[in-house]
Amino acid sequence: MIPFNKPHITGKEIDYINDALLSGKISGNGIYTKKCHDFFKLNYGFEKCLLTQSCTDALEMAAILCNIQPGDEVIVPSYTFVSTANAFSLRGAKIVFADSLPNHPNIDHDKIEELITSKTKVIVPVHYAGNACNMPKIMDLAKRYNIFVVEDAAQAFDANFLNNDDTHQSLGTFGHLATFSFHETKNIISGEGGMLVINDSALFERSEIIWEKGTNRTAFYRGEVDKYGWVDIGSSFLPSEVTAAFLFAQLEASHHIQLKRKEIWERYSKELSDWLIENGFAFHDIPKYSDNNAHMFFILAKNISVRDMFIKKLKEKGILSVFHYQSLHKSLFMRNNNDNNCYNSDRYSQCLIRLPIYAGLTYEEQSFIIKTIKNLNFH
Amino acid sequence: MIPFNKPHITGKEIDYINDALLSGKISGNGIYTKKCHDFFKLNYGFEKCLLTQSCTDALEMAAILCNIQPGDEVIVPSYTFVSTANAFSLRGAKIVFADSLPNHPNIDHDKIEELITSKTKVIVPVHYAGNACNMPKIMDLAKRYNIFVVEDAAQAFDANFLNNDDTHQSLGTFGHLATFSFHETKNIISGEGGMLVINDSALFERSEIIWEKGTNRTAFYRGEVDKYGWVDIGSSFLPSEVTAAFLFAQLEASHHIQLKRKEIWERYSKELSDWLIENGFAFHDIPKYSDNNAHMFFILAKNISVRDMFIKKLKEKGILSVFHYQSLHKSLFMRNNNDNNCYNSDRYSQCLIRLPIYAGLTYEEQSFIIKTIKNLNFH
Repeated sequence: MIPFNKPHITGKEIDYINDALLSGKISGNGIYTKKCHDFFKLNYGFEKCLLTQSCTDALEMAAILCNIQPGDEVIVPSYTFVSTANAFSLRGAKIVFADSLPNHPNIDHDKIEELITSKTKVIVPVHYAGNACNMPKIMDLAKRYNIFVVEDAAQAFDANFLNNDDTHQSLGTFGHLATFSFHETKNIISGEGGMLVINDSALFERSEIIWEKGTNRTAFYRGEVDKYGWVDIGSSFLPSEVTAAFLFAQLEASHHIQLKRKEIWERYSKELSDWLIENGFAFHDIPKYSDNNAHMFFILAKNISVRDMFIKKLKEKGILSVFHYQSLHKSLFMRNNNDNNCYNSDRYSQCLIRLPIYAGLTYEEQSFIIKTIKNLNFH
Repeated sequence: MIPFNKPHITGKEIDYINDALLSGKISGNGIYTKKCHDFFKLNYGFEKCLLTQSCTDALEMAAILCNIQPGDEVIVPSYTFVSTANAFSLRGAKIVFADSLPNHPNIDHDKIEELITSKTKVIVPVHYAGNACNMPKIMDLAKRYNIFVVEDAAQAFDANFLNNDDTHQSLGTFGHLATFSFHETKNIISGEGGMLVINDSALFERSEIIWEKGTNRTAFYRGEVDKYGWVDIGSSFLPSEVTAAFLFAQLEASHHIQLKRKEIWERYSKELSDWLIENGFAFHDIPKYSDNNAHMFFILAKNISVRDMFIKKLKEKGILSVFHYQSLHKSLFMRNNNDNNCYNSDRYSQCLIRLPIYAGLTYEEQSFIIKTIKNLNFH
């Protein structure tokens, strides 16, 4: 079987993990955590970032930092992973679901304003497949209404927004806060893992406190206070040095991993586009203001039965392609708590298919996938 | 320098971690997670347990499972780690602080009843130093008032309550829920890590859902539902397989680790008791209903200046002994929100000293510590 995803191991992970194990400091916030933070600062310009145990954890930190109170409203796309919404539900927020664009699963930026009320506190754009949401428009809106923006950049490692003048800006640097995932399904992994990026300097100090169980221990380590204690709510968001060591090995190899994924992505695009159009599949429509970090290669069937047939036929040949999110506004947990329709989200729930993509996918395996798809007929 | 704690590595950790890395399944809830769960079921009779990223995470799961609502009251000892209280504060609970016993940092079980009101929802006894709280008394009280009990067993790996008839019962099997820590400072470690034990079978199903980000994915894997989705609040509480593999290596060696720690503990006890009494230090007073898992060797100075002097003198000789918690009811975060006095807790905050104890402490190092202490004079 060719899996949908296979965690890519560079070989250095085990050396760094062993180093962390034998260092005498294996709990969080040690040398490897700092190395990872420094990597992101240097390569992506994140002024302040904190590794977390998961992207979910980073979203929960964001919800606390935005000071969510019961009854506050948070605008979240319906087409996303549960944690995007769950982190705010945990703080008592009312989730207001936004629909996707007609031609891309990202949030429809032109439909956000009509969802804003006096209770709206946060907008959470999700960069689906690592493709940029229209951040300048969303940030303008947030500024006008005095609302926080938390970028859910779970899939957006090494991804950029493209400006009109050919310059670019890293995803994760637009919102007041941004969250990343290093779950094994992502481009760069640590098994479970995540990171919070804090762009709003007014939140720097509190972010460290919440990270360290509501204590001012980080300031204590820096010698800024002479003893530390409980000063705020918080949790144990920091990952162990073993997890950080794993991640650092991946980060060092990230240039190579990204090149490999992009090669695979480009080949799918080049060799399948004619077949996709002829067979009635909508093709990957990356917004013009987004580059492509090759996190995902997705296509859209014309309806759910074609999607199911496509997945079934590929599975019969030993290839695992998969659908993705179910619209959250229709989930058992939420369907009685909102009255928005999200037709585009529903269409992606029913029609989107993801093809295998991972750094270890061989040329021959990809040839087999492409050949198998081209032998299908959906006229 | 002889540190206060040194994480003990058995040698098998790196092999199991490598195995997990190369297994193709590195995110949570895989083979090593199951091995750890099975170990606890087999050796300690925990019918249902779930590894978590930390003991803090396990406490947060407990707070959700007890369905804490804003304004609910939770009784917590003041002498404990911030997370014991923080996990319930995060859900909006009012923390009601209980004092310690006069002769042991554990919660004074005879003083709990007077703190119970119609709003009390949970009592959280903390097994300090792995020494048992008086669980039969606390469980009786909880039953009479229909209150949940969450055992904070962070330090209580391999620890028991001793019955009058010479039988024993594992700590972590008394409360509706119990939480363990595998932080690097504990007997058995995984860097960061923890576990929730669910003894109340009415909470089994929901515990799995909360563990898996509020989805019914665990039931889906078992084939009990045909697709999974968002059904409840929750978080990403499960640790990676790397963390679980680390823990499993430790569990396999736990018998040896425990023997080694107990040897060190017994030697401190035997060789220091006369000196401690002569010099006005209160000696380790383990309740008669508790065995001793050798998590900690603590002594009590007669006041804070003797404590500080003791720590300073040892440090000058290259030995790190340390104090412990600051009373939570006096923390910056809580001091304006409660009016209980906890005099015993304050005394432990000011007078308790912990001596170095870890499986890798050599006979010679311990001889040096004992000799150094015996050369001090506090008459």
